[in-house]
Amino acid sequence: MFVLVNLKTYPCDAVAVAEAARDVDASTDARVAVAPQAAQLERVAETGVETWAQHVDPIEHGSNTGHTLAEAVADAGAVGTLINHSERRLKLADVDGAVEAAQRTGLETVVCANNPAQIGAAAALGPDAVAVEPPELIGTGTPVSQADPDIVEGAVDAAANVDSDVSVLCGAGISTGEDVVAASDLGAEGVLLASGVAKADDPKAALEDLVEPL
Amino acid sequence: MFVLVNLKTYPCDAVAVAEAARDVDASTDARVAVAPQAAQLERVAETGVETWAQHVDPIEHGSNTGHTLAEAVADAGAVGTLINHSERRLKLADVDGAVEAAQRTGLETVVCANNPAQIGAAAALGPDAVAVEPPELIGTGTPVSQADPDIVEGAVDAAANVDSDVSVLCGAGISTGEDVVAASDLGAEGVLLASGVAKADDPKAALEDLVEPL
Amino acid sequence: MFVLVNLKTYPCDAVAVAEAARDVDASTDARVAVAPQAAQLERVAETGVETWAQHVDPIEHGSNTGHTLAEAVADAGAVGTLINHSERRLKLADVDGAVEAAQRTGLETVVCANNPAQIGAAAALGPDAVAVEPPELIGTGTPVSQADPDIVEGAVDAAANVDSDVSVLCGAGISTGEDVVAASDLGAEGVLLASGVAKADDPKAALEDLVEPL
Amino acid sequence: MFVLVNLKTYPCDAVAVAEAARDVDASTDARVAVAPQAAQLERVAETGVETWAQHVDPIEHGSNTGHTLAEAVADAGAVGTLINHSERRLKLADVDGAVEAAQRTGLETVVCANNPAQIGAAAALGPDAVAVEPPELIGTGTPVSQADPDIVEGAVDAAANVDSDVSVLCGAGISTGEDVVAASDLGAEGVLLASGVAKADDPKAALEDLVEPL
Repeated sequence: MFVLVNLKTYPCDAVAVAEAARDVDASTDARVAVAPQAAQLERVAETGVETWAQHVDPIEHGSNTGHTLAEAVADAGAVGTLINHSERRLKLADVDGAVEAAQRTGLETVVCANNPAQIGAAAALGPDAVAVEPPELIGTGTPVSQADPDIVEGAVDAAANVDSDVSVLCGAGISTGEDVVAASDLGAEGVLLASGVAKADDPKAALEDLVEPL
Repeated sequence: MFVLVNLKTYPCDAVAVAEAARDVDASTDARVAVAPQAAQLERVAETGVETWAQHVDPIEHGSNTGHTLAEAVADAGAVGTLINHSERRLKLADVDGAVEAAQRTGLETVVCANNPAQIGAAAALGPDAVAVEPPELIGTGTPVSQADPDIVEGAVDAAANVDSDVSVLCGAGISTGEDVVAASDLGAEGVLLASGVAKADDPKAALEDLVEPL
Repeated sequence: MFVLVNLKTYPCDAVAVAEAARDVDASTDARVAVAPQAAQLERVAETGVETWAQHVDPIEHGSNTGHTLAEAVADAGAVGTLINHSERRLKLADVDGAVEAAQRTGLETVVCANNPAQIGAAAALGPDAVAVEPPELIGTGTPVSQADPDIVEGAVDAAANVDSDVSVLCGAGISTGEDVVAASDLGAEGVLLASGVAKADDPKAALEDLVEPL
Repeated sequence: MFVLVNLKTYPCDAVAVAEAARDVDASTDARVAVAPQAAQLERVAETGVETWAQHVDPIEHGSNTGHTLAEAVADAGAVGTLINHSERRLKLADVDGAVEAAQRTGLETVVCANNPAQIGAAAALGPDAVAVEPPELIGTGTPVSQADPDIVEGAVDAAANVDSDVSVLCGAGISTGEDVVAASDLGAEGVLLASGVAKADDPKAALEDLVEPL
């Protein structure tokens, strides 16, 4: 099970969360990675944790002031990237271009989307994985398995219908180890979460609780 | 074969092109429609031509100043709408929302995209049709059949792989009746074109030439 | 005093509101105009009311599918346009381009902005007027004079500091005739309002109440 | 004279350019700074050069995946930031918000704009400086002093008319020391440049040539 911790622009100690993630990754069967802001990639990667970017732009080297280049992100230590997160929605053509840019650079890709139809669309663009983020669950604390299990199963079916090589992450409604198990039972191969770990008083304990039932 | 004439924001006489399209639709086996600007929908629809919008926003009735509401477009006489044209790209989630808005209102939908991967993505959102617009052909006058037939066949395959009910239009590189035949031979059920008709000295003659070989 | 009624994408009868506005304009000293959706401009203008667009794009005739061309809006009967409404924010360069497009076509321009600093910025682009829309007042029913009179006075000062030819409208917190008087006392030469008239059971009575104290 | 070198997303060695800039800053009267990508801020700042960000978003700490937070940029070593570069245009309200975010964090601000009217608008938002980037000069190699000196003088006047505390940089058409002198003679207090230094075989020599006539 893949646990990807999105640090957003939280006022958290990115390095401390990264060290916790690195340790839990090493001491359990779970795969744990952390996605900090672009400006923090280097210091997070230096902890040894698996490091992801939160976004890359559909661009190449050139005249793109203020954009996020896949090569720069990889050079700073990222091995994967989120694309089209609900807080950083892209045009359809730019999701395609960002997946291409990431793949050109060897970054693993997770494309986020809201519902099964969009998950099918995201899967058609050929990323490694998609993450379904039902807007009604984001940041509510409601576990996905209780609120709307159909949306995860629907996302798993929609992705499989388009490209069976694309795995599905559950991108909202994950707070506890039970939620992780529920997501896994619904067909998800990973979870994308944020505040539950990034804002925890003890991120390591929070991560251990999350992966303990696996 | 469906021939959809996009009037863009050309300085053409929208009503005159609409009348030509109406007459060619009536006198041939081709289905011919016209997509004017929102502010011209009403007068174009009054000619009796099949009228399409160029864009609708992913919104409902409410506080959306300056946006294009599917209901208003339908009320002005449109029976279908382009979505995500290369000159009006939308976020992935908004393509989804615009398709939903159009379907809620009974508008037929054509979602545009650049390449087979994006065509698959567009098809996953459940529109009536998709239109493939290879950027390298838009506005060049190069016929699609000569330039890159693979992209049309690839689009037809990509759409069919995702949803066999979604038909495919060829959205660039169409200037002559031969191009229309070539697009049809490649599996397209229609063509989306613009300047070849809208800017012609005699739009009716241009349309007749286009559909003559059918 | 200029009263500009924004119909947004409300499910109102645009023509009925237009007729009410036309009649109140004719029977009082107030100048009353209506801003419908682009697809409704023609039928609204046919009532004889002063008709405004809700938005124009920073474009010329050409390949701009799905955009709003100033010429098309003027041709449908508009004599003015809102630009950069809080529900249709534009890039700074595009506010500039939209003002130019409107002026090229002879449309009167009102550029909306959030606060005195942005009002100064909007005034620097040379529109006929600016409208200050404090986000904390939009849609709340709180009258601007009670909530935050400083923001209107600040907007009037900011505009005057940059270009004394640019008049200021009060773009939020206007529900009653008292609010209109308060806005006028604070230096505003007009008001921009929406639901109070557009959603009223009797738009004519609502408008008469608004302008009665003038 | 302030010389700000924008590294864009060029395939240059950011650290090498930074070291050259640091050395020329130390050995001459010019103030020289470098603006790398967000992911490279930390390593560039470690050289001791004055480090600028290329962009910050109008956000605070919170749920803003994939955005650039002023605090993170400052924490990585930036002391200033470009805002609204022609390759990263922002909505008017977001230019205002980005200036606020930068000032909240103590970052110096340069807001870019296309022409004197927009320069006046940018100045009204209260940045430390504005940079005028005539689109017709960007990347052409044409020196601003020969092509269109009026636009620099117009920008200086427009900024002074709005806020005399806002200084003006010349943001295009600078390749040689003569261009820097010409910009200074036209009233600019600095220059913003990119490829002339960032893509030079010997960035230090290129910078020395630029500042030599001062």
